[in-house]
Amino acid sequence: MSLQWLQQPAKPVDISSRDAAAARQDDLTKPRGALGGLEALAIQLAGLQARPCPAIDRVHITVFAADHGIASAGVSAYPQVVTGEMVRNFASGGAAISVLARQLAATLDVVNLGTVNDPGEIAGVRRAIIAPSTANFLDQAAMSDDQLVRALDEGAQAVRRAQSAGSELFIGGEMGIGNTTAATALACVLLEAGPPEITGAGTGLDEEGVRHKAEIIARAVAFHRGFVADPLEALRRLGGFEIAALVGSYVSAAQHGIVVLVDGFISSVAALAAVAINPGCREWMLFAHRSAERGHQRVLDALAANPLLDLGMRLGEGSGAALAVPIVRLACALARDMATFSQAGVSNRD
Amino acid sequence: MSLQWLQQPAKPVDISSRDAAAARQDDLTKPRGALGGLEALAIQLAGLQARPCPAIDRVHITVFAADHGIASAGVSAYPQVVTGEMVRNFASGGAAISVLARQLAATLDVVNLGTVNDPGEIAGVRRAIIAPSTANFLDQAAMSDDQLVRALDEGAQAVRRAQSAGSELFIGGEMGIGNTTAATALACVLLEAGPPEITGAGTGLDEEGVRHKAEIIARAVAFHRGFVADPLEALRRLGGFEIAALVGSYVSAAQHGIVVLVDGFISSVAALAAVAINPGCREWMLFAHRSAERGHQRVLDALAANPLLDLGMRLGEGSGAALAVPIVRLACALARDMATFSQAGVSNRD
Repeated sequence: MSLQWLQQPAKPVDISSRDAAAARQDDLTKPRGALGGLEALAIQLAGLQARPCPAIDRVHITVFAADHGIASAGVSAYPQVVTGEMVRNFASGGAAISVLARQLAATLDVVNLGTVNDPGEIAGVRRAIIAPSTANFLDQAAMSDDQLVRALDEGAQAVRRAQSAGSELFIGGEMGIGNTTAATALACVLLEAGPPEITGAGTGLDEEGVRHKAEIIARAVAFHRGFVADPLEALRRLGGFEIAALVGSYVSAAQHGIVVLVDGFISSVAALAAVAINPGCREWMLFAHRSAERGHQRVLDALAANPLLDLGMRLGEGSGAALAVPIVRLACALARDMATFSQAGVSNRD
Repeated sequence: MSLQWLQQPAKPVDISSRDAAAARQDDLTKPRGALGGLEALAIQLAGLQARPCPAIDRVHITVFAADHGIASAGVSAYPQVVTGEMVRNFASGGAAISVLARQLAATLDVVNLGTVNDPGEIAGVRRAIIAPSTANFLDQAAMSDDQLVRALDEGAQAVRRAQSAGSELFIGGEMGIGNTTAATALACVLLEAGPPEITGAGTGLDEEGVRHKAEIIARAVAFHRGFVADPLEALRRLGGFEIAALVGSYVSAAQHGIVVLVDGFISSVAALAAVAINPGCREWMLFAHRSAERGHQRVLDALAANPLLDLGMRLGEGSGAALAVPIVRLACALARDMATFSQAGVSNRD
């Protein structure tokens, strides 16, 4: 395996379909622009799907789970065993993303990339163990070169499964105790921002916990400074298996022409890394929600992203993205099924 | 008919169901509070529906259409014939709310309260003509006492139809060229605010059009000043048939224990009037979205409302509320179907 595939260009946008969709919006029985963000969404999707009336019927959700060496620095409110336990919960249907996937009739694909508490073989979980966890990036790289390559490739493989199933939308989710710490460290490097600006409470740290977490991140960033100008190397040193898999999935989805709906903080940091590695994949990304995690707005700003929802969520798993799926679907239904002024015999303002 | 029914109390909230729902949220396999606004939503609904796990299966949407005498003052970007034309479009399935209702499997109930361009009998439209339009409130009351009583009663009747069908959620929509002018005038009186603060572009006025509209509203408010301390009298003088019907529906829904999902600017002004008339109905209201119409935030603030969506919509018809229905349904599904920590064998932070 190599990483050359990451540089393949994203599928181009179909400008004529996009323009046709924009013209159609202005002819539907509503004041121009009255559907606000739904109009922009339908127009963007038309360009991506190369048809004037886009549709999002089949949705594929892949949740990547992995553990983090940095968890030993006491950066999470939850014990590390939870990562493996949650893998089982995803598969048995009790996790938030499991409930949402059922409600949306979406495919839920769970990938175990390596957990300290190994749940073993589980029906419905792809077992793709890279290592029980990343290394503690306080004084070494989180991943070896080979581990990074494998994690990125697992993301691309998830997209291939989505494509085989005819999915029109890809959602990447993540689970891993300690992964807001890894994502924050990576964001600090990619944004050239100080840890206190970006570091948040994760699963629920108190103020003292957040301060400690920011100090840990500052030490890690200082240790790796000088080696992180390349975004892939930053990802290898400070990321996690599930974060790298998300990066791989976002790049691959754009290359294969599958729209991506990006979830919250960790997913957005992965999106930021993906765009730094391959800028063309930005056009294939929709952003689902603004997370309650402190650093998310900075990451969204850097991506010029204006998410659909702002509900104070901070769960991960792809849950915020799943919640936005009905909005995307309804935007498509409106663009397709509303009557035009002439069809309905309704007078226009002109 | 009299108006005494408006003063009947709203159905009380079931505190024990609400508390049970709140306790359940803290026991589900997610960090406490990680579902943000969805948790608050599920807890509120549990109290209203008097069951720890609420559900919104059947949704009833009533769109009230009516014309406005104030339209002759040149306050809209669209000609007045559009109101009647859109009544036909609602029924034939081409309007935004028609498309959304189908997608949500919701009942769409259309009530024609009086349009200058009368579409006549239409299958699927309740014909409840009060007058071809309200009077021009620049120098007279928009409605007579009798007209107000009938419009409020039409709202209550819509709620009775929703209840007969077993609906768990009521959405009121509106259509009426000129009705942001009426709603803005009413809001100015209820909020004691100046027209320039509240007046917006409606269906798409330019800056000069908005200035003219604000001047018209200021003249009307000045004319009726001294007679509008009572919110019902303010509604009679400055409202419209469809706005009064919304007020009647919101009060009636709270009395009958049906949750209301309030749409955008005009609906929120109706909600403000309903709460001024009968404060107990506030607890039965959810707020769907923040409209792009200028005055909406002021109205939401006065209602202490934090809407679910903010997508720059400004269409009315109940469309923004319809768009929020999947969010409400998913919040219920999560509360009902997620596993608890003990069920899933997942370690909690304690």
